[in-house]
Amino acid sequence: MQTPIFSDIQKAHKRVEPFIHRTPVLTSNSLNKIFHSNLFFKCENFQKVGAFKFRGATNAVMSLNDEKAQKGVATHSSGNHAAALALAARNRGIKAYVVMPENAPEIKKKAVEGYGAEITFCQPTLEARETTLAKVIEQTGATEIHPYNNFEVISGQGTAAKELIEDNGSFDLILCPVGGGGLLSGTSISTKSMLPGAKVIACEPVGADDAYRSFYGGQIHPSVNPNTIADGLLTSLGKLNFEIIKSNTDKVVTTSDEAIVKAMRMIWERMKIIIEPSSAVPLAAIIEKKIDVEGKKTGIILSGGNVDLNKISNYF
Amino acid sequence: MQTPIFSDIQKAHKRVEPFIHRTPVLTSNSLNKIFHSNLFFKCENFQKVGAFKFRGATNAVMSLNDEKAQKGVATHSSGNHAAALALAARNRGIKAYVVMPENAPEIKKKAVEGYGAEITFCQPTLEARETTLAKVIEQTGATEIHPYNNFEVISGQGTAAKELIEDNGSFDLILCPVGGGGLLSGTSISTKSMLPGAKVIACEPVGADDAYRSFYGGQIHPSVNPNTIADGLLTSLGKLNFEIIKSNTDKVVTTSDEAIVKAMRMIWERMKIIIEPSSAVPLAAIIEKKIDVEGKKTGIILSGGNVDLNKISNYF
Repeated sequence: MQTPIFSDIQKAHKRVEPFIHRTPVLTSNSLNKIFHSNLFFKCENFQKVGAFKFRGATNAVMSLNDEKAQKGVATHSSGNHAAALALAARNRGIKAYVVMPENAPEIKKKAVEGYGAEITFCQPTLEARETTLAKVIEQTGATEIHPYNNFEVISGQGTAAKELIEDNGSFDLILCPVGGGGLLSGTSISTKSMLPGAKVIACEPVGADDAYRSFYGGQIHPSVNPNTIADGLLTSLGKLNFEIIKSNTDKVVTTSDEAIVKAMRMIWERMKIIIEPSSAVPLAAIIEKKIDVEGKKTGIILSGGNVDLNKISNYF
Repeated sequence: MQTPIFSDIQKAHKRVEPFIHRTPVLTSNSLNKIFHSNLFFKCENFQKVGAFKFRGATNAVMSLNDEKAQKGVATHSSGNHAAALALAARNRGIKAYVVMPENAPEIKKKAVEGYGAEITFCQPTLEARETTLAKVIEQTGATEIHPYNNFEVISGQGTAAKELIEDNGSFDLILCPVGGGGLLSGTSISTKSMLPGAKVIACEPVGADDAYRSFYGGQIHPSVNPNTIADGLLTSLGKLNFEIIKSNTDKVVTTSDEAIVKAMRMIWERMKIIIEPSSAVPLAAIIEKKIDVEGKKTGIILSGGNVDLNKISNYF
């Protein structure tokens, strides 16, 4: 299994730079005081389509040779990856085919349509999604871009941590949420290459703790009936991702949904920025003292900001 | 009546720079597309204490001579000015005395206390606030710092527009919400001095339209039973503020609460930042086509981000 190395992330960065935002890194005096730490938040909630996913999708789309590209790209997703892939494809002037469960939220359908993707609806089961996607690919010849278990996607996601370190120097700790492992695997490659002394800590909701079980169990244990407010982190680790995480991640910690909501609210109120629940998982781990950040320079990747404000009463 | 001129704002800027954040200016491709404009948002929601008020309060506190300063500063306020004055006083190492209605929200009491101010509670009427403040000043010898009808406060508030223009060059329009007129008067002085060709437009909720009536009536018409979701804009124009606004503002427009909520939501969802309703009034005016921004480079001051998330169901 060939996994990306740092030079792949460097190449990805050159490829995606014309398309992405180099997102800002924010700090908060009041959070630093509360946690006796020095926290740096990489704001991928300000990224295009509102999430880091646009980095990986862009790198995957822009890496295709012309012959492949002209047949388009395809994925099944109802989340940020679908919107990210749709916009990346539009930027290259090619088609994106997205398979979505028919019960996907209206707001997500509109976002993906708004970026010009062609949506095929299917039954809301993983099997239906996979067979429908296979059919679409057979008919169109499009290239499948998996949301995280993909070499170029991982290389693209690693550019966020690369920018964080380039813009803010050395760190003691880099914290990152983990779902399928795309962001975490890319982040861990950049961190270990640029700052060999820094520790990479993966943060996961306890209600979807497959990365925790896989990391400490030494093999992939899939997500079974995950249940957490952090709806971007429900999926199971990819094979490629696990391979990278195994050797580049120092620790996986889990946090309660209660702490996730508390952390999310803290960031909204004190930093005046909107993040989605998945982005709040690292700060939740700090709140629950699963990570000792005292006196340490700590980088945190805020993965995205796509919250449905109609459902905000679920949180506060 | 002596009003500040641009050199007073320049002096204020030197004085406050060590204490304030030079807040970022954000843009949004999607909002620019929707409104066919080129919008630049000056993010005072990221200012210390979460609002531009910290600029004016800091300038007022740091302008006092040592003899006056040692007796402290005082104000009556239940809003952002009280917290701003408390922090500014703490930064100078002097006392702040804040008179607050006893029914002020718990969250505001805590914020002001947290910055070390001494609070005196009173009945929730303007008369009680004024007589209580007079008593506190008599007892302590503190200097009253009015939230907007104050030379140094106005000079401090003008530094936000000064930074906006310094960092982003020329503008066709500068839009600003108006309540008591502190931000608007400072903004208008900076804009007209730095960019004589730019227009300054004041934006006001129709449910608190005293600035509109005063500007077009040629004299101050106080706010009577104001009723708007933009709770930072309920007060009447100050005399000093009106004097400045009369000659430096090109237009006052009013907007509905419905548009204010729509604009606030648009900024939360698309820009992923938290602003309070008062900050959304200029974009509300654009939504309601009260201001023609098409093809124009437009600066908008986002005045603050202090929203009580427990009351968020009032908005969405």
